[in-house]
This record gives sequence, C-alpha cells and structure tokens, in this order.
Amino acid sequence: MSAVLSDSEIQEKLASLPGWIREGKEIIRTYEFPTFPEAIAFVDRVAQAAEEANHHPDIDIRYTRVTLRLTSHDSGGLTERDFALAARADALA
Amino acid sequence: MSAVLSDSEIQEKLASLPGWIREGKEIIRTYEFPTFPEAIAFVDRVAQAAEEANHHPDIDIRYTRVTLRLTSHDSGGLTERDFALAARADALA
Repeated sequence: MSAVLSDSEIQEKLASLPGWIREGKEIIRTYEFPTFPEAIAFVDRVAQAAEEANHHPDIDIRYTRVTLRLTSHDSGGLTERDFALAARADALA
Repeated sequence: MSAVLSDSEIQEKLASLPGWIREGKEIIRTYEFPTFPEAIAFVDRVAQAAEEANHHPDIDIRYTRVTLRLTSHDSGGLTERDFALAARADALA
C-alpha cells in the first residue's frame, strides 16, 4: 500500500502531467484519437501497463475518446502509483 | 438511418436479451469476467463487431466489469441496430 500524497505533492505532480485534472481523490484525463480502432488500441496498451502495475484505471470509451480515472482505492486517495500510471498512459497515447 | 422502435417492440426484443435493461433511449448491460485481461479481451471483440457494424456502444471498464450502452444517435432512439449489436455482444461474452 502506497502513502497518500498531500495536496501540494499532488499539485506538483500534476504540473508535469498536462491534460490531467484532479477531481477529489481521482486524477482524470481524456484522450482523443483519429479513429475508433486507434482508441481501442490505446486501451489495449494501457490495459497491459495496468495489469503489469497491478493498478487498474477506470476506462470510459466514447467512440474516439477514451477517459482514464485513477485513484488508489486501497490507500484511500492519490498515491505515487496513480501518477506513475498516468505518465505511462501518456507515453502510450 | 434505422427506424426508431416503439415501446412494445422494445419490450419484445428485451425479452429475448436477458441481462439488458432499458434506460430511456438506451439499452444497457454489465458483464463480469474472472480477470481484467479477460474483460479487456471482451472489449476487443465487441470493438471489432462494433467497427464492422459501424455502430459503437459506450463502453465503461471497471476492473473486471464491462458495461455497454447502446443507442442510435442518428435516429434519436433505439433501433434494430442496437438490438443486433446487443445480441452480438452477448455471443462474444
């Protein structure tokens, strides 16, 4: 179980993750792709990274738009693991 | 563009699709899988069927649970296309 980050730690980390916003205990980003198959291919890459990290975002697919929501349920807030997977998802987009 | 179905047509079609419920202009079903990779594999199969049908459900992934929402935006309601893809998704689960 990872330590819950403070508000200032979260702000600092968000500053290096453009496109991600915080909503309470979650961080959220929506990605847009040229086609539906490209959106699904991104979901597949994120899913593989999520399984490797044993940390699974909520994933909403709306045609060519994919929204990821991250939180650390077991810790009860946002932790390093959320920001690590957010950065990984950005690299896979 | 397909014709919007009447309430009685919708009720009749839902009767042959256990697990699907109607919410206004949408039909909705949640599937549960033993593992996250199995949930993602289902999403991949549904995505391929959706692309072939050029009819794309909203897809929400919550770890091992996948929720599909279907409507025919261009027709402004539920049509044959929604029920055809619902049956196809059931066959792919």
